[in-house]
Amino acid sequence: MATTDRSRCPINLAVEILGDRWSLLVLRDIIFADRRHFRELLRGSEEHITSSILADRLERLTTAGILTREDDPTHRQKARYTLTEKGVELVPVVATVAQWGTAHCPADPEKTDVVAELAYEPPATWTHLMDTLRSQHLPRETIGS
Amino acid sequence: MATTDRSRCPINLAVEILGDRWSLLVLRDIIFADRRHFRELLRGSEEHITSSILADRLERLTTAGILTREDDPTHRQKARYTLTEKGVELVPVVATVAQWGTAHCPADPEKTDVVAELAYEPPATWTHLMDTLRSQHLPRETIGS
Repeated sequence: MATTDRSRCPINLAVEILGDRWSLLVLRDIIFADRRHFRELLRGSEEHITSSILADRLERLTTAGILTREDDPTHRQKARYTLTEKGVELVPVVATVAQWGTAHCPADPEKTDVVAELAYEPPATWTHLMDTLRSQHLPRETIGS
Repeated sequence: MATTDRSRCPINLAVEILGDRWSLLVLRDIIFADRRHFRELLRGSEEHITSSILADRLERLTTAGILTREDDPTHRQKARYTLTEKGVELVPVVATVAQWGTAHCPADPEKTDVVAELAYEPPATWTHLMDTLRSQHLPRETIGS
Protein backbone atom coordinates (compact mmCIF):
# COMPACT_ATOMS: atom_id res chain seq x y z
CA MET A 1 0.00 0.00 0.00
CA ALA A 2 1.35 3.42 -0.86
CA THR A 3 1.88 5.51 2.22
CA THR A 4 1.51 8.83 0.44
CA ASP A 5 -2.23 9.00 1.04
CA ARG A 6 -1.88 8.25 4.70
CA SER A 7 -1.08 10.50 7.60
CA ARG A 8 2.05 10.90 9.69
CA CYS A 9 0.16 10.42 12.93
CA PRO A 10 2.43 8.22 15.08
CA ILE A 11 -0.32 5.63 15.55
CA ASN A 12 -0.79 5.38 11.80
CA LEU A 13 2.94 5.07 11.20
CA ALA A 14 3.13 2.28 13.78
CA VAL A 15 0.19 0.28 12.35
CA GLU A 16 1.67 0.58 8.87
CA ILE A 17 4.52 -1.55 10.23
CA LEU A 18 2.81 -3.70 12.87
CA GLY A 19 -0.86 -3.74 11.83
CA ASP A 20 -1.28 -7.32 10.70
CA ARG A 21 -2.08 -10.65 12.31
CA TRP A 22 1.47 -11.99 12.51
CA SER A 23 4.14 -9.36 13.25
CA LEU A 24 3.46 -9.13 16.99
CA LEU A 25 3.37 -12.93 17.24
CA VAL A 26 6.83 -13.22 15.64
CA LEU A 27 8.10 -10.57 18.04
CA ARG A 28 6.44 -12.36 20.97
CA ASP A 29 8.37 -15.54 20.13
CA ILE A 30 11.66 -13.65 19.86
CA ILE A 31 11.02 -11.72 23.09
CA PHE A 32 9.57 -14.43 25.32
CA ALA A 33 10.90 -17.68 23.83
CA ASP A 34 14.27 -16.36 22.63
CA ARG A 35 13.75 -17.91 19.19
CA ARG A 36 16.39 -16.31 17.01
CA HIS A 37 16.54 -18.56 13.93
CA PHE A 38 14.02 -19.03 11.11
CA ARG A 39 13.48 -22.73 11.81
CA GLU A 40 12.91 -22.19 15.53
CA LEU A 41 10.34 -19.51 14.78
CA LEU A 42 8.65 -21.71 12.17
CA ARG A 43 8.56 -24.97 14.13
CA GLY A 44 7.77 -23.41 17.49
CA SER A 45 4.85 -21.33 16.23
CA GLU A 46 1.73 -22.12 18.22
CA GLU A 47 -0.29 -20.44 15.49
CA HIS A 48 1.29 -22.58 12.74
CA ILE A 49 2.70 -19.66 10.82
CA THR A 50 3.61 -20.65 7.27
CA SER A 51 7.13 -20.44 5.94
CA SER A 52 6.22 -17.74 3.41
CA ILE A 53 4.41 -15.51 5.92
CA LEU A 54 7.27 -15.87 8.41
CA ALA A 55 9.86 -14.97 5.75
CA ASP A 56 7.78 -11.96 4.71
CA ARG A 57 7.33 -10.69 8.27
CA LEU A 58 10.99 -11.16 9.20
CA GLU A 59 11.96 -9.18 6.11
CA ARG A 60 9.48 -6.41 6.90
CA LEU A 61 10.57 -6.20 10.54
CA THR A 62 14.21 -6.06 9.41
CA THR A 63 13.47 -3.37 6.81
CA ALA A 64 11.63 -1.40 9.50
CA GLY A 65 14.70 -1.50 11.74
CA ILE A 66 13.02 -3.60 14.45
CA LEU A 67 15.25 -6.62 13.84
CA THR A 68 18.67 -7.10 12.34
CA ARG A 69 19.69 -10.21 10.43
CA GLU A 70 23.14 -11.73 10.70
CA ASP A 71 23.88 -14.21 7.95
CA ASP A 72 25.90 -17.32 8.67
CA PRO A 73 28.22 -17.70 5.67
CA THR A 74 28.47 -21.47 6.12
CA HIS A 75 24.75 -22.18 6.59
CA ARG A 76 22.41 -20.15 4.45
CA GLN A 77 19.36 -21.10 6.47
CA LYS A 78 20.99 -20.23 9.78
CA ALA A 79 20.55 -16.51 9.68
CA ARG A 80 20.10 -15.14 13.19
CA TYR A 81 17.64 -12.39 14.06
CA THR A 82 18.35 -9.86 16.78
CA LEU A 83 16.17 -7.14 18.29
CA THR A 84 17.30 -3.56 17.86
CA GLU A 85 16.60 -0.89 20.48
CA LYS A 86 13.54 0.04 18.36
CA GLY A 87 12.45 -3.60 18.74
CA VAL A 88 13.14 -3.76 22.47
CA GLU A 89 10.98 -0.68 22.94
CA LEU A 90 7.99 -2.62 21.58
CA VAL A 91 7.80 -4.51 24.91
CA PRO A 92 5.18 -2.07 26.33
CA VAL A 93 3.04 -2.57 23.20
CA VAL A 94 3.27 -6.36 23.43
CA ALA A 95 2.60 -6.21 27.19
CA THR A 96 -0.49 -3.99 26.93
CA VAL A 97 -1.86 -6.15 24.09
CA ALA A 98 -1.26 -9.24 26.26
CA GLN A 99 -2.93 -7.55 29.23
CA TRP A 100 -6.00 -6.64 27.20
CA GLY A 101 -6.20 -10.10 25.59
CA THR A 102 -5.92 -11.77 28.99
CA ALA A 103 -8.65 -9.59 30.47
CA HIS A 104 -11.09 -9.64 27.58
CA CYS A 105 -10.61 -12.68 25.37
CA PRO A 106 -11.30 -16.31 26.34
CA ALA A 107 -7.63 -17.21 26.63
CA ASP A 108 -6.42 -20.68 27.49
CA PRO A 109 -4.90 -20.47 30.99
CA GLU A 110 -2.26 -23.05 30.08
CA LYS A 111 -1.14 -21.00 27.10
CA THR A 112 -0.80 -17.69 28.82
CA ASP A 113 2.07 -18.47 31.25
CA VAL A 114 4.80 -15.86 31.11
CA VAL A 115 2.89 -13.54 28.81
CA ALA A 116 -0.02 -13.30 31.23
CA GLU A 117 2.30 -12.91 34.19
CA LEU A 118 3.90 -9.96 32.48
CA ALA A 119 0.51 -8.51 31.65
CA TYR A 120 -0.58 -8.50 35.26
CA GLU A 121 2.62 -6.92 36.46
CA PRO A 122 3.16 -3.18 36.67
CA PRO A 123 5.19 -1.35 34.00
CA ALA A 124 8.37 -1.64 36.11
CA THR A 125 8.49 -5.27 34.99
CA TRP A 126 8.51 -4.16 31.35
CA THR A 127 11.60 -2.09 32.06
CA HIS A 128 13.31 -5.09 33.61
CA LEU A 129 12.46 -7.28 30.59
CA MET A 130 13.66 -4.55 28.21
CA ASP A 131 17.00 -4.38 30.05
CA THR A 132 17.35 -8.16 29.84
CA LEU A 133 16.60 -8.07 26.10
CA ARG A 134 19.12 -5.27 25.58
CA SER A 135 21.82 -7.38 27.22
CA GLN A 136 20.88 -10.35 25.00
CA HIS A 137 20.37 -8.54 21.71
CA LEU A 138 22.18 -5.23 21.49
CA PRO A 139 25.89 -4.74 20.87
CA ARG A 140 27.56 -4.16 24.21
CA GLU A 141 28.84 -0.69 23.33
CA THR A 142 25.36 0.67 22.61
CA ILE A 143 23.80 -0.33 25.94
CA GLY A 144 23.21 2.65 28.15
CA SER A 145 24.30 5.09 25.46
CA MET B 1 -9.65 -16.68 8.73
CA ALA B 2 -10.60 -19.70 10.79
CA THR B 3 -9.31 -19.42 14.31
CA THR B 4 -9.12 -23.16 14.87
CA ASP B 5 -5.52 -23.40 13.70
CA ARG B 6 -4.42 -20.56 15.90
CA SER B 7 -3.66 -20.50 19.58
CA ARG B 8 -5.49 -19.10 22.56
CA CYS B 9 -2.48 -17.07 23.62
CA PRO B 10 -3.90 -13.69 24.70
CA ILE B 11 -1.66 -11.83 22.24
CA ASN B 12 -2.94 -13.98 19.40
CA LEU B 13 -6.56 -13.49 20.43
CA ALA B 14 -6.03 -9.74 20.55
CA VAL B 15 -4.38 -9.48 17.12
CA GLU B 16 -7.15 -11.59 15.62
CA ILE B 17 -9.43 -8.67 16.49
CA LEU B 18 -7.11 -5.66 16.18
CA GLY B 19 -4.33 -6.84 13.87
CA ASP B 20 -5.00 -4.79 10.76
CA ARG B 21 -4.14 -1.33 9.50
CA TRP B 22 -7.40 0.36 10.37
CA SER B 23 -9.02 -0.82 13.60
CA LEU B 24 -6.73 1.15 15.92
CA LEU B 25 -7.16 4.27 13.75
CA VAL B 26 -10.95 4.07 14.02
CA LEU B 27 -10.61 3.65 17.79
CA ARG B 28 -8.14 6.56 17.93
CA ASP B 29 -10.72 8.84 16.28
CA ILE B 30 -13.45 7.73 18.68
CA ILE B 31 -11.16 8.07 21.74
CA PHE B 32 -9.32 11.30 20.94
CA ALA B 33 -11.68 13.15 18.58
CA ASP B 34 -14.98 11.93 20.05
CA ARG B 35 -16.28 10.98 16.59
CA ARG B 36 -19.31 8.84 17.27
CA HIS B 37 -21.16 8.74 13.92
CA PHE B 38 -20.24 7.01 10.67
CA ARG B 39 -20.06 10.23 8.65
CA GLU B 40 -17.84 11.96 11.19
CA LEU B 41 -15.46 9.02 11.19
CA LEU B 42 -15.45 8.89 7.38
CA ARG B 43 -15.03 12.61 6.68
CA GLY B 44 -12.61 13.30 9.50
CA SER B 45 -10.25 10.45 8.66
CA GLU B 46 -6.73 11.76 8.13
CA GLU B 47 -5.90 8.47 6.42
CA HIS B 48 -8.85 8.75 4.00
CA ILE B 49 -10.47 5.52 5.12
CA THR B 50 -12.99 4.28 2.56
CA SER B 51 -16.65 3.87 3.35
CA SER B 52 -16.53 0.09 2.92
CA ILE B 53 -13.46 -0.41 5.12
CA LEU B 54 -14.95 1.83 7.81
CA ALA B 55 -18.26 -0.07 7.74
CA ASP B 56 -16.40 -3.38 7.96
CA ARG B 57 -14.22 -2.29 10.89
CA LEU B 58 -17.14 -0.78 12.82
CA GLU B 59 -19.05 -4.03 12.39
CA ARG B 60 -16.06 -6.11 13.50
CA LEU B 61 -15.39 -3.91 16.52
CA THR B 62 -19.07 -4.10 17.45
CA THR B 63 -19.15 -7.90 17.03
CA ALA B 64 -16.03 -8.12 19.21
CA GLY B 65 -17.77 -6.18 21.98
CA ILE B 66 -15.44 -3.18 21.77
CA LEU B 67 -18.16 -0.83 20.50
CA THR B 68 -21.91 -0.81 20.73
CA ARG B 69 -24.14 0.59 18.01
CA GLU B 70 -27.32 2.48 18.78
CA ASP B 71 -29.58 2.88 15.77
CA ASP B 72 -31.56 6.04 15.22
CA PRO B 73 -35.00 4.87 14.03
CA THR B 74 -35.65 8.12 12.12
CA HIS B 75 -32.25 8.37 10.41
CA ARG B 76 -30.79 5.13 9.18
CA GLN B 77 -27.35 6.63 8.65
CA LYS B 78 -27.22 8.23 12.07
CA ALA B 79 -26.25 5.18 14.09
CA ARG B 80 -24.10 6.18 17.04
CA TYR B 81 -21.10 4.18 18.21
CA THR B 82 -20.13 3.96 21.85
CA LEU B 83 -17.12 2.42 23.55
CA THR B 84 -17.73 -0.46 25.94
CA GLU B 85 -15.53 -1.07 28.99
CA LYS B 86 -13.62 -3.56 26.80
CA GLY B 87 -13.05 -0.67 24.37
CA VAL B 88 -12.05 1.82 27.06
CA GLU B 89 -9.44 -0.64 28.28
CA LEU B 90 -7.71 -0.43 24.91
CA VAL B 91 -6.38 3.03 25.90
CA PRO B 92 -3.05 1.57 27.17
CA VAL B 93 -2.60 -0.27 23.85
CA VAL B 94 -3.31 2.86 21.81
CA ALA B 95 -1.04 4.92 24.10
CA THR B 96 1.94 2.53 23.91
CA VAL B 97 1.55 2.28 20.12
CA ALA B 98 1.49 6.10 19.96
CA GLN B 99 4.51 6.33 22.22
CA TRP B 100 6.50 3.90 20.09
CA GLY B 101 5.43 5.59 16.84
CA THR B 102 6.39 8.98 18.20
CA ALA B 103 9.81 7.74 19.33
CA HIS B 104 10.70 5.64 16.29
CA CYS B 105 8.80 6.74 13.20
CA PRO B 106 9.24 10.04 11.37
CA ALA B 107 5.99 11.51 12.63
CA ASP B 108 4.75 14.93 11.64
CA PRO B 109 4.98 17.13 14.77
CA GLU B 110 1.85 19.03 13.75
CA LYS B 111 -0.16 15.82 13.48
CA THR B 112 0.84 14.30 16.78
CA ASP B 113 -0.75 16.81 19.18
CA VAL B 114 -2.83 15.13 21.85
CA VAL B 115 -1.76 11.62 20.90
CA ALA B 116 1.90 12.43 21.39
CA GLU B 117 1.19 14.29 24.62
CA LEU B 118 -0.50 11.20 25.97
CA ALA B 119 2.37 9.03 24.80
CA TYR B 120 4.91 11.03 26.73
CA GLU B 121 2.87 11.04 29.90
CA PRO B 122 3.10 8.32 32.51
CA PRO B 123 0.40 5.64 32.70
CA ALA B 124 -1.53 7.64 35.34
CA THR B 125 -2.71 9.81 32.45
CA TRP B 126 -4.16 6.76 30.71
CA THR B 127 -6.24 6.06 33.79
CA HIS B 128 -7.57 9.60 33.75
CA LEU B 129 -8.48 9.36 30.05
CA MET B 130 -10.14 5.99 30.65
CA ASP B 131 -12.26 7.47 33.43
CA THR B 132 -13.27 10.37 31.16
CA LEU B 133 -14.24 7.92 28.39
CA ARG B 134 -16.24 5.81 30.85
CA SER B 135 -18.25 8.89 31.85
CA GLN B 136 -18.87 9.72 28.17
CA HIS B 137 -19.56 6.23 26.83
CA LEU B 138 -20.73 3.81 29.48
CA PRO B 139 -24.21 3.62 30.98
CA ARG B 140 -24.16 5.43 34.31
CA GLU B 141 -25.12 2.38 36.37
CA THR B 142 -22.12 0.33 35.18
CA ILE B 143 -19.44 2.88 36.12
CA GLY B 144 -17.46 1.78 39.11
CA SER B 145 -19.19 -1.59 39.27
